Amino acid sequence: MADERDPIYHVDGDLVPASEATVSVDDRGFRYGDAAFETLRAYGGTIFEWGAHLERLEATCDALSLAHGLSGDDLRGRIDETLAANDLEDAYVRLSITRGVQPGKLTPQPEVDPTVVIYAKPLPRGGVDGESVWDDVATVRTVETRRIPDESIPAAAKTHNYLNGILARAELRAATEDEASEADEALVCDLEGCVAEGATSNLFFVRDGVLQTPTTDGDVLPGITRAIVLELAAEADVPVRDGRYELEDVRAADEAFLTNRTWELRPIATLDGRAIGGGPITERLSRLYDERVERACYE
Amino acid sequence: MADERDPIYHVDGDLVPASEATVSVDDRGFRYGDAAFETLRAYGGTIFEWGAHLERLEATCDALSLAHGLSGDDLRGRIDETLAANDLEDAYVRLSITRGVQPGKLTPQPEVDPTVVIYAKPLPRGGVDGESVWDDVATVRTVETRRIPDESIPAAAKTHNYLNGILARAELRAATEDEASEADEALVCDLEGCVAEGATSNLFFVRDGVLQTPTTDGDVLPGITRAIVLELAAEADVPVRDGRYELEDVRAADEAFLTNRTWELRPIATLDGRAIGGGPITERLSRLYDERVERACYE
Repeated sequence: MADERDPIYHVDGDLVPASEATVSVDDRGFRYGDAAFETLRAYGGTIFEWGAHLERLEATCDALSLAHGLSGDDLRGRIDETLAANDLEDAYVRLSITRGVQPGKLTPQPEVDPTVVIYAKPLPRGGVDGESVWDDVATVRTVETRRIPDESIPAAAKTHNYLNGILARAELRAATEDEASEADEALVCDLEGCVAEGATSNLFFVRDGVLQTPTTDGDVLPGITRAIVLELAAEADVPVRDGRYELEDVRAADEAFLTNRTWELRPIATLDGRAIGGGPITERLSRLYDERVERACYE
Repeated sequence: MADERDPIYHVDGDLVPASEATVSVDDRGFRYGDAAFETLRAYGGTIFEWGAHLERLEATCDALSLAHGLSGDDLRGRIDETLAANDLEDAYVRLSITRGVQPGKLTPQPEVDPTVVIYAKPLPRGGVDGESVWDDVATVRTVETRRIPDESIPAAAKTHNYLNGILARAELRAATEDEASEADEALVCDLEGCVAEGATSNLFFVRDGVLQTPTTDGDVLPGITRAIVLELAAEADVPVRDGRYELEDVRAADEAFLTNRTWELRPIATLDGRAIGGGPITERLSRLYDERVERACYE
């Protein structure tokens, strides 16, 4: 059991205090960002959509030719141990698998002794009648940094190479330095100028009653919350379209929101200073999402 | 003093044995690859072209808005301590500066407590009359992975986000699995299909007596060995051109070689199975390079 100041991490098979949670500087995860990760959500002690996370993790590892050799049960066991050690039921969880230490330099070797790192932080649940996890609706700005194209790094891979998103957020920070309130999320376009995604979120918008989102045929991470929202919309007979959109399409939206594991569905108050906000479809999908969490983790 | 099996690393200001050379898993260098690095060469105990390395390191940190606050003298002092602790005069040296541990998640904060990691490995010098540092001339293959464009991550930044190069090398490995000898280097093109660079090297080729190399106006890392070769060619009145080239231009070359800190100038034996090889201009520039090292580090 640990208080908030001294959390317990799971590193390379062991539960250790945060102050001792380290990796070798020779680990390829440190040296090259040569690692896959997932951010997960525990509600009432249950990992929501574990199967989908495991599937995406494997897709990332396949894209990196990272044959870590660990079973889903093993990984899930380590997550559960981490939650238990920190006495957490409602939590944000981050799981990373690196290619570990290998002989030689850049060229990855087929024999992998992976390093697995897991940590969990308390994150209260909103729930059907509760408060949302975000403090406020989102302020979003577009940035000049362009999404890394699929031809350079597979768009579906969730890796420790996160500088593209950091550069987007740094731009956002610089742009809002003189303003009273900082923007929350950078909206990143692809090289052709089409809207791709936020630095750590997927984008949805509603126009004329149709829910729309940039297609994962483009350079867009296939978010798990995104996939659930699309499923919920289909079940609720909300018309859905995915495609490639110009910024103008989003700016002219009736409703818009961001999704990720932590935020769930988070309405966009403003995009580049213009008001958009949530609305009836955003609210309906948020409620359906809460109900799905309820069914999956509490029944 | 340390033998080869137990080298001494410089981590966050301290000299520590390799087995204790670690960083926190919360360090942004591990979590996001949020770090700058340089690979350097010590000849006879002297860092070759330290000024150029420091300049490029600062350019990388500027690109990442990473204000580490450390002086060049401080960094150089740590490198010299590392060389001395390992009793090394001729060495490969890697210096990294990460954004350290910061509160919050992705958005970088302006106050930085950087983590500096340095290690050195023995690397004998070839020298004017010595052997080259590479075992053999290079076998090169083109790959499908495309260089990350400057709009996504500044091309001049040398960072711990090295998956693009790893994917290129993994492709190379897969392509040569069934062959007797592995290829040494992956030649990566940009999104338009023009030749950019190797996974860890710059490319030069000679056609009709003119030395040519992909321009850093494109998506090409401004290698320090590359810059020196261009200077040496100008001093020796070798005609030089930099531009954007098709693969066919390189395949039709009379001579070709790769450059980086470790390899210095390394002739390309074959590109995609077709023989190219070095030649009189490659040999002349190699000798001039050795002489420059001699003057810079031994006189």
